Amino acid sequence: MPPQLAPITLAAIQQPVRADLDAVFEELGRIVRSDFPMIEDVNAHLLRIRGKLFRPTLLLLASRAVDRYAPRKLTLGACVELIHVATLVHDDSVDHSVLRRGQPTVNALFSHQVAVIMGDYLYSRAMIELVTLGDLDALRIMSRVTNEMTVGEMRELEAYDALDYSEEAYTRLIQAKTASLMSGACEVGAVDAPADQRQALRRYGMRLGMAFQITDDVLDYTETERVTGKPSGLDLKEHKITLPLIAALPHMSAAERAKVGQVMADPEPDDHGVAEVMGIVHERGGVEAARARAQDYADQAAAVLEPVPRGAPRDALGDGITYAIERRS
Amino acid sequence: MPPQLAPITLAAIQQPVRADLDAVFEELGRIVRSDFPMIEDVNAHLLRIRGKLFRPTLLLLASRAVDRYAPRKLTLGACVELIHVATLVHDDSVDHSVLRRGQPTVNALFSHQVAVIMGDYLYSRAMIELVTLGDLDALRIMSRVTNEMTVGEMRELEAYDALDYSEEAYTRLIQAKTASLMSGACEVGAVDAPADQRQALRRYGMRLGMAFQITDDVLDYTETERVTGKPSGLDLKEHKITLPLIAALPHMSAAERAKVGQVMADPEPDDHGVAEVMGIVHERGGVEAARARAQDYADQAAAVLEPVPRGAPRDALGDGITYAIERRS
Repeated sequence: MPPQLAPITLAAIQQPVRADLDAVFEELGRIVRSDFPMIEDVNAHLLRIRGKLFRPTLLLLASRAVDRYAPRKLTLGACVELIHVATLVHDDSVDHSVLRRGQPTVNALFSHQVAVIMGDYLYSRAMIELVTLGDLDALRIMSRVTNEMTVGEMRELEAYDALDYSEEAYTRLIQAKTASLMSGACEVGAVDAPADQRQALRRYGMRLGMAFQITDDVLDYTETERVTGKPSGLDLKEHKITLPLIAALPHMSAAERAKVGQVMADPEPDDHGVAEVMGIVHERGGVEAARARAQDYADQAAAVLEPVPRGAPRDALGDGITYAIERRS
Repeated sequence: MPPQLAPITLAAIQQPVRADLDAVFEELGRIVRSDFPMIEDVNAHLLRIRGKLFRPTLLLLASRAVDRYAPRKLTLGACVELIHVATLVHDDSVDHSVLRRGQPTVNALFSHQVAVIMGDYLYSRAMIELVTLGDLDALRIMSRVTNEMTVGEMRELEAYDALDYSEEAYTRLIQAKTASLMSGACEVGAVDAPADQRQALRRYGMRLGMAFQITDDVLDYTETERVTGKPSGLDLKEHKITLPLIAALPHMSAAERAKVGQVMADPEPDDHGVAEVMGIVHERGGVEAARARAQDYADQAAAVLEPVPRGAPRDALGDGITYAIERRS
């Protein structure tokens, strides 16, 4: 590969489907609309945030790559994003998060009750829309993926405090929580393509999602709040075990491991203790090992794209891999 | 009508579909099964409770009444119950309820986090199953109904503290929250019947559900904890405005209304104040008026059954109306 001169931006990846994404966003607004004022208030807040539309981007690029773009793909893209947003709304509520990407969460701005109900509202609206399209294949993929995400959420509850949390358990967790929806988005985009292309894109999405989530977990150890929009070391502070720590633990001294145990035993560890453990994780190669693991998945994602026809959309999917592992927020 | 000699029991109504209901319960167990231990723990708890299976009863009786019973109706019955249970799990979590029918709620026994995730898990499992059946008509009904229930939940948030809450708003609330799923259960049972019968059963379920929920709200004013499994006057204690209070308010003196206002202003009203307001609601005809409203819906439910062929299943549906308004728990 030639040396990378400038980082790949999301905007560049989205270039081949930019107009489609605006249409997806409009579809989203149409699908969630309600005649009940409180629901419209929450909708307005969520639509204001908009988000990166990364999953619809994958879906649309996949559909273009296999030459199966159709207006219904815009609706499917909106549904995928809606399911993603519904999951975030419930996640934030479960985690009592106050901010997401620098914006107040639904539970913080409205209430915990509104967040639980609103997640259900958004998800069931997406299902209505998928049923209206009448595409049983897309419905099968999306309902399966949604269920996998709930299992991932449940797995995540176990990943707190557990210093013996294995890389295998972590892998299954992020596959269910993150990679399944990205894989589903790609597969739905290519749902009407020849089987080998559809399968290639499903696999690509899965590996991309793994690389994406590992990178997310690495960023928690490497970037500042100014860049990511959330406090550095937040996972550690919340006692959440992710790959950098899992990979570093076997290489720590007894004293270092005790230090980690101390932070985990403290309900509200102070910044100094958290920074110390972050330093140990760096020194003991945890960040490096996690980055290498993300690179493995990235390489696999690139390799499985082979059966997909060449062209600008496939190139953009390839760039999506680089973006997933090189982004800083 | 001949005078009623003995109250109609749920067991009597379920008699024509008793064996089917056992099969529904087995289906339910199959559908929710997981290889993840924490999910299986919650499943075991929920299956131990079992519940009355009232909604699958409606679905199966409807299918028998229009002579459209088929094994797939058992799966549909399990899905309807599953959606009901998922809603209860989220409801209890939103309301911070500790007990339901004398049993600990999921949020109480496990955690709030587990309850939110588990509701999503159960609901998405039901969707997977409906998609597997490939019945777009049933999917359309169930996804619409699920969404209506979330709107009902949102409406309910407004029904707290609001002494100016109108009967119209209450009617829309209980229609969305309770009647829509009963209506959906009946319609799904008859989804493949002639249009007039399918529509008759949809309407029957809607009116039955209205009568059912109003009766529920009346029971809160008339029955003791020993009978219903939840404290008497709980709605008042939680500042929830229901029909008995709405109907009584216009007939209250200024002093009585002030008393109600006092209880609503008190974050934790004592038993004495609650009992006093319950007495006023009784005296000012609120309970009587709500019962009359439930009877109206019951009469309408009986009337709309006309196009449904006569026989034991239709008779059981008719008895279901009596059960809905005469039950004490």
